[in-house]
Amino acid sequence: MPKIAVLPGDGIGQEIIPQAVRVLKAVLAEKEADFEFQDYPVGGAAIELVGKALPDETLKACQEADAVLLGAVGGPQWDHLPASKRPETAALLGLRKGLNFYANIRPVRMIPSLLATSTLKEDVLDGVDMVVIRELTGGVYFGEKGRSENPRSAYDRMSYTEEEIRRILVQGFETAMLRDKKLCSVDKANVLETSRLWREMANELSKDYPEVELTHMYVDNAAMQLVRNPKQFDVIVTENMFGDILTDLASMLGGSIGMLSSASLSGTQGMYEPAHGSAPDIAGKNLANPLATILSVALMLRYSFGMEDEALRIEKAVEKVLEQGYRTGDLAQAGDKLVGTVEMGDAVLAAL
Amino acid sequence: MPKIAVLPGDGIGQEIIPQAVRVLKAVLAEKEADFEFQDYPVGGAAIELVGKALPDETLKACQEADAVLLGAVGGPQWDHLPASKRPETAALLGLRKGLNFYANIRPVRMIPSLLATSTLKEDVLDGVDMVVIRELTGGVYFGEKGRSENPRSAYDRMSYTEEEIRRILVQGFETAMLRDKKLCSVDKANVLETSRLWREMANELSKDYPEVELTHMYVDNAAMQLVRNPKQFDVIVTENMFGDILTDLASMLGGSIGMLSSASLSGTQGMYEPAHGSAPDIAGKNLANPLATILSVALMLRYSFGMEDEALRIEKAVEKVLEQGYRTGDLAQAGDKLVGTVEMGDAVLAAL
Ligand SMILES: [Mg+2]
Ligand SMILES: [Mg+2]
Repeated sequence: MPKIAVLPGDGIGQEIIPQAVRVLKAVLAEKEADFEFQDYPVGGAAIELVGKALPDETLKACQEADAVLLGAVGGPQWDHLPASKRPETAALLGLRKGLNFYANIRPVRMIPSLLATSTLKEDVLDGVDMVVIRELTGGVYFGEKGRSENPRSAYDRMSYTEEEIRRILVQGFETAMLRDKKLCSVDKANVLETSRLWREMANELSKDYPEVELTHMYVDNAAMQLVRNPKQFDVIVTENMFGDILTDLASMLGGSIGMLSSASLSGTQGMYEPAHGSAPDIAGKNLANPLATILSVALMLRYSFGMEDEALRIEKAVEKVLEQGYRTGDLAQAGDKLVGTVEMGDAVLAAL
Repeated sequence: MPKIAVLPGDGIGQEIIPQAVRVLKAVLAEKEADFEFQDYPVGGAAIELVGKALPDETLKACQEADAVLLGAVGGPQWDHLPASKRPETAALLGLRKGLNFYANIRPVRMIPSLLATSTLKEDVLDGVDMVVIRELTGGVYFGEKGRSENPRSAYDRMSYTEEEIRRILVQGFETAMLRDKKLCSVDKANVLETSRLWREMANELSKDYPEVELTHMYVDNAAMQLVRNPKQFDVIVTENMFGDILTDLASMLGGSIGMLSSASLSGTQGMYEPAHGSAPDIAGKNLANPLATILSVALMLRYSFGMEDEALRIEKAVEKVLEQGYRTGDLAQAGDKLVGTVEMGDAVLAAL
């Protein structure tokens, strides 16, 4: 029986996760009985309960689960802790490492009714619908690094193995197959050896995916093109550091951070979470926007359970409630129907 | 006597450089006699003349000059050459290397009359006025790199010495002193050792510049902030690869590539050129926009000759002709006064 580990965490995590779980159960309908749902403590909540942000039992349960649904972690009560014990590092990095996630998936989709909230012009954004895939375990962030003194110097080593590159590129091609079959591989092959290996392998793998149109783009140009003409992209796949930069940049195309979902994957095992944080300032007040978490549940259905129809049903329902004018405070403008967290969940359920 | 080496190069370079030189001489007025101007061949033009894109005589003259004014190089006639002989690589990289430029300076200034041409909303861009400074000689692009086979793997080494970091940070602080005295140092100090050394040195150097407000920003956030709220920046300074990405991204904030000037510096010795290329398709037709080259001359006065007043006079004149509605074809919209390259030069001269 497929297992879903549910980790609400801290702050608004406690409010948004129940709404996402309601939507997930509703869309599963009679199939719900085939899935096992279980809650586990994580983050500051877990520190209060058992003294550490990522309890062994939680980690083990997540490793055994097919999918993890995570709310958010952290808050001012735990900011005084050393970095290694703080919820943001201990829990999030611990989960990413403990489950060996090598792919981060960030869909960016401009929802027509949110066009006005972006800093880009409406005609530039209207129709933006892309997925950015970032490699998560290799590259310069995880390479050997060092320092010399007198005179001072420092280095970081960027490296990639064939296997690390292959699995993330496969993720790119497979994701493109689910969508418009256009894959843009971003590198800096004119100067980096790691990028030349990356590009060589992308070209090799494209023979296994004859339906996918593969293109290559240098990272500096990709950053520019995301602002100049973002509609040209369907799926972008890139290495860790380039992806770190491009996912944050692409998040500006989605209208609001309150709408951004993300998936961290190792094959079909995945962790799904909103891109935003635990927002302690509005926690417990029924003010938080649950839509990014609800959209994360759609990603879970798509990437862990291959349930594309159900994923689309959720995405369409979210689009519909926004068209109907429902807004939580973070998105509301004059004339909108201002609703709370629970009411937004109700609206999505009604729209399913 | 200060020497200015003038290298028109190929394509529209032959048309835009004369306009920029006219403006430069006009603003120098009676001081013109104190400067030595001399033309030298470069690029495809030099290949035709002496068989190589960067003749020894040209390189030597540039090394002895205080400032180099470069038009653009390259064209379809020379695209069949091996990369090492092509104008874009042989001439440009040869000059950058031969003159040991370690700083690339890119001003990005939104000119009110060009607001409509950007993909960002007008209220986001109105008032943008920043300089992005990129380190040019160090980091991962120039580090040791290598490849293994069976299984394949590759690496690139990112490294920086104290001296490399100091001189570019000094450039950042000095540039900030000429402006609003705000310096944003961009790094990834939460994961990279080179960035930690960079940040440590920025904090040390800030003691020598008590008037400059130094801030630090992670590169992924910087990419996001350039789109979210670009007005917050005055001077950005960053390492080579981050700068490669951020300068291209920032170029989207300036309205048009036809307006972007750039300086490559080693101390006060500098090379000044438009960010655009040689545009062979419109060459020889009096269609090219000379304003980026004219603005590059302003940078020359500022960074090589310390003539801030004269630099500002040129920048104000450019702004004025645009306000007056003069446009070359690349910027023209209905209702504008469409002019050619020479007429645009005339207009700037008249506005000085
Ligand atoms: Mg990031
Ligand atoms: Mg670049």
